[in-house]
Amino acid sequence: MSEPDPDDLEPYRFKCPRALHWHGNRKAAELLAEIPTNLGVDRYGVGGAVEALEDEIRAVLGKPAVVFMPSGTMAQQAALRIHADRRGARAVAFHPTCHLELHEDRAYQRLHGLVGVPIGNARELITLDDLRGVRERLAAVLFELPQREIGGRLPPWADLEEQISFARAQGAAVHLDGARLWECTPYYGRSPAAIAALFDSVYVSLYKGLGGLAGCCLAGEEDVVGEARAWRQRHGGTLFGLWPNAASGLAALRKRLPLMPKYFAHALAIAEALRGLPKVEIVPDPPQTPMMHLHLRVEAKAFRAAARRIAEEQGLFTWAKTVAGDTPSTRVVEFAVGDATLELAPQEVAGIVEQLVS
Amino acid sequence: MSEPDPDDLEPYRFKCPRALHWHGNRKAAELLAEIPTNLGVDRYGVGGAVEALEDEIRAVLGKPAVVFMPSGTMAQQAALRIHADRRGARAVAFHPTCHLELHEDRAYQRLHGLVGVPIGNARELITLDDLRGVRERLAAVLFELPQREIGGRLPPWADLEEQISFARAQGAAVHLDGARLWECTPYYGRSPAAIAALFDSVYVSLYKGLGGLAGCCLAGEEDVVGEARAWRQRHGGTLFGLWPNAASGLAALRKRLPLMPKYFAHALAIAEALRGLPKVEIVPDPPQTPMMHLHLRVEAKAFRAAARRIAEEQGLFTWAKTVAGDTPSTRVVEFAVGDATLELAPQEVAGIVEQLVS
Repeated sequence: MSEPDPDDLEPYRFKCPRALHWHGNRKAAELLAEIPTNLGVDRYGVGGAVEALEDEIRAVLGKPAVVFMPSGTMAQQAALRIHADRRGARAVAFHPTCHLELHEDRAYQRLHGLVGVPIGNARELITLDDLRGVRERLAAVLFELPQREIGGRLPPWADLEEQISFARAQGAAVHLDGARLWECTPYYGRSPAAIAALFDSVYVSLYKGLGGLAGCCLAGEEDVVGEARAWRQRHGGTLFGLWPNAASGLAALRKRLPLMPKYFAHALAIAEALRGLPKVEIVPDPPQTPMMHLHLRVEAKAFRAAARRIAEEQGLFTWAKTVAGDTPSTRVVEFAVGDATLELAPQEVAGIVEQLVS
Repeated sequence: MSEPDPDDLEPYRFKCPRALHWHGNRKAAELLAEIPTNLGVDRYGVGGAVEALEDEIRAVLGKPAVVFMPSGTMAQQAALRIHADRRGARAVAFHPTCHLELHEDRAYQRLHGLVGVPIGNARELITLDDLRGVRERLAAVLFELPQREIGGRLPPWADLEEQISFARAQGAAVHLDGARLWECTPYYGRSPAAIAALFDSVYVSLYKGLGGLAGCCLAGEEDVVGEARAWRQRHGGTLFGLWPNAASGLAALRKRLPLMPKYFAHALAIAEALRGLPKVEIVPDPPQTPMMHLHLRVEAKAFRAAARRIAEEQGLFTWAKTVAGDTPSTRVVEFAVGDATLELAPQEVAGIVEQLVS
């Protein structure tokens, strides 16, 4: 065993009774207590809570078919592979900060022989010109709403429609990384189904904004979803029982989908309270979803010392890690507004952020 | 919705308070109540119950490294792919009834580009001559202990050692499908570690004999297991939280590994009680593990009617499905002796089986 790292904030995560970010750091007993037991168990993904969840997501997304998947990594590889096989093409286009590109160790290449085509500027949204610049036949274009790695930005609705029409006209499928689809609904003023309707296949997460245990759903036409079930088995994702995560996800959907406008309003109020602070930049400003990035003009050491002090003295967990974009003088943190954040008034949040940069 | 199938016994599964097979059909609340909450949660497979489980399995199997995996399908593909990459060979040999061949829709081919080489007779154990007959360079030989699809048979220890030496001498890795490794220990009179010591990599299930929720572990050298962690991520198996299944598996290991001799003794006593029955054949006879196949000389319709009658009148669930080997006049069922079976005396079991064939 190595010595504990004095710079590591992780040990405070479960010690702090309060948190700034997201739904906080819930413990095992609390999470288990939220799993409904009346939905029944599945056998290898058939029946019980899994079926109940798939039925409800089908209604919420307005798609013909839905399959529960253990992870977005599995769901999106399956969707893109299916689109590729149907079109006899291997190239799939996505934003340079796409989850498949940054966080999956090139599994789409290693397991499925797909070729990634990054489009556009890593710090900006995809544009129609970026799509026009592609010089090969694409099996699919993956859109991510919101674009998480740049603070959760959303394109104007008309831009999105135009890009999707263009991709379709080239013969490409359009797939939605809607891990945070729920969070887009207040800004667009549209239902999840109205947004999902633009896409051939839609992946939605059950644990990010919704706060379930883990897992997601993939929605689309019957044939695509049927084939995705086969890929789930092949990936090793059709477990003997999938019901605990499915039941947790269904409870989380029912509890937190209606709260999205509240999270979003709170995010806007927090941005308002932070706006005057020197050394703090909000990206995007104003936020377009209940998430935003904060660019904090503070060096790493001072930031960590402040975060530790806040954890120790106020029992409040802030951030153990920063995200891509750090410079010697700037820390970039992802700030998702959730249940834990709702417990704090915007001015309280501003006070904490002020301590982090001082 | 289609009409309920009158031949479908599944609806009785969770209605019957008792069961003949395995640990019975436990409900959601019961399964959740068995998950220890004091082991902590992991983040993407790091820490908490996942680490606690991996530590304990490392000790039980006496291997340098262990990783928790969501499923055997994922674990075994990872192990074989790693052995193949290291040896610059794509061919992996296994029994014709291997799980990879029968139950994974050729994922090892589709995702990993491996080539399966079935060896030996599907109704018999692998022999040294079968291995000698292979005409290509193998990346790995997969041994399954016990050989599940033929009733849970085990080769004599000396045969196993000889086959493994031969495979190694050809430059192949030796991998153990030890989904039911725990069940082999009474027959061999050897610890899980003593059996695992023969192999380069070992997969053990946490939900079959042990009765956890789902999931398994892969054990081996540090470098192989490290690479398997990478494959777990690539397959989409490194979930945000893996702790519920890991915690359940650890509790199940502690509870049921010590019960294996008791399950085995009960299986032997049941075989003894069944042996005199006309129309009933035990495979293997005597059983070598707490599982066996029963070949029941009864037509499908009569079998299902009897199973339904037993479910309705005695509240006892027997079998909803048969396994490979059925003929017009014979039903083959897999019989795993577990907690539910322990509630029934051998003569009671014989009485129930007699009703199934009459």
